[in-house]
Amino acid sequence: MSPARRFANALVAWVLVSVLLLAALFFGALAWIYIGSHRYEQIDDEAQIASKRAYLERVAGSPITGSQRPNVILILFDDLGYGDLSSYGATAIRTPRIDGLAAGGVRLTDYYAPAPVCSPSRAGLLTGRYPVRTRVTQVPMTAGGAIGAPLMGLPLYEIQRAFDVVTRLPVEEITLAEVLQAAGYATGAFGKWHLGKESPSLPTERGFDRFEGLLNSNDQLPNPYLRDTEIIEESPVDQTTLTERYTAAAIAFIEENRARPFFLYLPHTFPHRPLHPSKMQHGKSAGGLYGDVVEDLDRSVGRIVDALEERNLSRNTLILITSDNGPWFQGSPGGHRGRKTGLFEGGFAVPFVAFLPGVLPGGAVRSEMAMGIDVFPTVLALAGIEEPDDRVIDGRDLMPMLRDGAPTPHEALFFYWAAQLGAVRSGPWKFQSRRPISVGYAPAPLMLQMPLGPWLFNLHTDGDESYDVGARHPQIRDRLARLIEERSAADAIDPRGFR
Amino acid sequence: MSPARRFANALVAWVLVSVLLLAALFFGALAWIYIGSHRYEQIDDEAQIASKRAYLERVAGSPITGSQRPNVILILFDDLGYGDLSSYGATAIRTPRIDGLAAGGVRLTDYYAPAPVCSPSRAGLLTGRYPVRTRVTQVPMTAGGAIGAPLMGLPLYEIQRAFDVVTRLPVEEITLAEVLQAAGYATGAFGKWHLGKESPSLPTERGFDRFEGLLNSNDQLPNPYLRDTEIIEESPVDQTTLTERYTAAAIAFIEENRARPFFLYLPHTFPHRPLHPSKMQHGKSAGGLYGDVVEDLDRSVGRIVDALEERNLSRNTLILITSDNGPWFQGSPGGHRGRKTGLFEGGFAVPFVAFLPGVLPGGAVRSEMAMGIDVFPTVLALAGIEEPDDRVIDGRDLMPMLRDGAPTPHEALFFYWAAQLGAVRSGPWKFQSRRPISVGYAPAPLMLQMPLGPWLFNLHTDGDESYDVGARHPQIRDRLARLIEERSAADAIDPRGFR
Repeated sequence: MSPARRFANALVAWVLVSVLLLAALFFGALAWIYIGSHRYEQIDDEAQIASKRAYLERVAGSPITGSQRPNVILILFDDLGYGDLSSYGATAIRTPRIDGLAAGGVRLTDYYAPAPVCSPSRAGLLTGRYPVRTRVTQVPMTAGGAIGAPLMGLPLYEIQRAFDVVTRLPVEEITLAEVLQAAGYATGAFGKWHLGKESPSLPTERGFDRFEGLLNSNDQLPNPYLRDTEIIEESPVDQTTLTERYTAAAIAFIEENRARPFFLYLPHTFPHRPLHPSKMQHGKSAGGLYGDVVEDLDRSVGRIVDALEERNLSRNTLILITSDNGPWFQGSPGGHRGRKTGLFEGGFAVPFVAFLPGVLPGGAVRSEMAMGIDVFPTVLALAGIEEPDDRVIDGRDLMPMLRDGAPTPHEALFFYWAAQLGAVRSGPWKFQSRRPISVGYAPAPLMLQMPLGPWLFNLHTDGDESYDVGARHPQIRDRLARLIEERSAADAIDPRGFR
Repeated sequence: MSPARRFANALVAWVLVSVLLLAALFFGALAWIYIGSHRYEQIDDEAQIASKRAYLERVAGSPITGSQRPNVILILFDDLGYGDLSSYGATAIRTPRIDGLAAGGVRLTDYYAPAPVCSPSRAGLLTGRYPVRTRVTQVPMTAGGAIGAPLMGLPLYEIQRAFDVVTRLPVEEITLAEVLQAAGYATGAFGKWHLGKESPSLPTERGFDRFEGLLNSNDQLPNPYLRDTEIIEESPVDQTTLTERYTAAAIAFIEENRARPFFLYLPHTFPHRPLHPSKMQHGKSAGGLYGDVVEDLDRSVGRIVDALEERNLSRNTLILITSDNGPWFQGSPGGHRGRKTGLFEGGFAVPFVAFLPGVLPGGAVRSEMAMGIDVFPTVLALAGIEEPDDRVIDGRDLMPMLRDGAPTPHEALFFYWAAQLGAVRSGPWKFQSRRPISVGYAPAPLMLQMPLGPWLFNLHTDGDESYDVGARHPQIRDRLARLIEERSAADAIDPRGFR
């Protein structure tokens, strides 16, 4: 190679490396901006906590108007995809017990998790509010990181806390468990919490009489097994028995509270990776290890159902089964575009089955849209408990839709990416904004959501969000874009929605 | 904020920025390694060119044994997804003319493009060899870049050439057009070339008597409209008339050569973005602008079919319709995982329709696997022309499969990511290696393919590659892993396969 050629090559290489360095500086600046916008110095507000206490005392002092005070069982899978249940089209995985509940209850085709990642989704599910209102817009990290070896050893949790990124559910937020506990329900959570690993946001501090399980995701270390607040197995725990242990604890809880109303929250660890099927199931499913853990979960559901049957509790127990977000590395989004962490349907759309014989019809399929934020008001309405009026509850009572096939109670549902509003659905239309140049989610705060839109999709004719029809329907596009703008503006002024 | 807190924050920020800078250096080093492995200093080898000439002379001097010397029309769409035709499940887009050919011919469900990006895919399609053998493992860039504004102005093509990244089909490669031209066919290409924008790799230098269209993708600038080698419209061209112009040129070519065998290659510009439907179609499709350009393409197919009918040529003309890779930003992968540029099915699996009345059955659907590399040997066999024997032809004659429903002629099909082997399919099994930490593809060489595997999928029970069953079927996994290892080792010694 000639010296001139060598020089030219070196020059081009220098340019390339410089571009990379500048890109790194650019992304570093983005991260800096992001952290700036996510540091919430004011949580656990005293006045808001007092207002919450007043509400809970009111609930505790109110006569229950619901005729039967139904038991409520909320089963939440972790990263289970839309297409991972046979009742939702899976062929490699068999889930006869969940399918049985769907056949005897109501199955939703257009149900969304409140967020495309774990913690914000759980915050939305348990409070009835968009996760951004709770300020849980990130996953609490650990030293082990959330994507495995590359981040091992980085003190990510300490970094989050140093920057005041919220890593637990603030005390002023009202959980479904706190309300039901105040209303006299026995409350138990058995599984993965992921809404705070320290006081005052431990499960037993947030409305649950009983807790057993893990505070973190199963890819985060350290992660001991707790009973209430006591460590009963040091980290790392034997993951092959987790589903069984949660199930046994749940059944013991049902037995213990058979004579009074109870709220059982069963947030399973699986099918979040790493996958650890039970010894009994290992190697059985045509869906590999992933199928094995899902079939373990299905068997767990069956055991819960059987435990209710044996105690004659089935007809007075609402069972809800869903997932916290779409599938991650494995798992099927069931034909939807995208996966966990993204704004496409594959990140948000998950199964939802509701079962309550005598109240809900059997074998009904509803294709109206709903979201996890609706669980809180639905359960409160069913139990005859008034909603809090000191704050915005974004969710709506789904009972008319579930029971009678009424239209969705939502004019629009919003899809947030970390703290930023990214998409909105109204009727069959979904609009994805160009706005989310936002950094967030595990490993927070280094992931970048690329803008692809603005795109308008008609989900009725284009279920995998392949065809932008914004130019075809400019009025619809503009209406949805305006919904995003208005809500983003409102979020900027008052994200938390306290009155 | 206290000084100690400020210092802590600054320290953490410094760590974060340092990590980013180190990451940039790491990726820069990867890019450097990549470029080193992609600099092909020896193309246009004299001995190989002489061997090719000898073959073509042999073809020119041989009596044609095929009974009828059928005409061949090869219609190639750009970035059309598996789910973008109504015969492949699209509901928002109507493609009655292509569906009509599928109804009167053979449709493949498990056909793959040779690569998940434009130029390598075309190199494989026209030579019958895996793209890596041709050294076309990248897309030739332009100053405009391939993803739009962010790269405008960077001299990417000059950078590629400075590093000897191959940006055109080497002269020693034998195209289907060169063979058919030598065998006495009239040959014409009307559309997007993308296999070299300079001599000696212009279309008219690679076997086509006639060329009309663009040398680059429609998002690359400058990109004038050529007739043969002459510029007849300066860049940027009016893209709304491209499909119509290609079609008119193709019909004129058919008319001109109605009395002799011809090979018509119609590599359309669309639905590659940016999307420019015809004025007539604009606003008509329920699939938005994307649907409009696809319906334009369908109408073009219809006009070609009509032109054949009118000239009584239908029964002696093989029509092949396919795409160069899966969908990019818009377009539907039809339920497959992934999109253009990736190793999942969504990057490679595309529609394939073959129509030849009297020879091929009507309305047949074949679910055996095939790949674009099979077109070259299939056409040669049909025309009764011997294959070259001085080099490996990876493709196989598909006629027994298309005509009689015979099994696939391939024990295994390989999926390359740039120059690196990433996945293999054999029977229903697809194995995705962990190996491809490889940088490549537009904007070359800055894109990184993350390793996710090793994964084994059973495509028959798991069409969207959601469940790794490697641990369930270790012998199959190991057999496929060995196929990848052996072939990678062979590629390292002799990627080009000359004898």
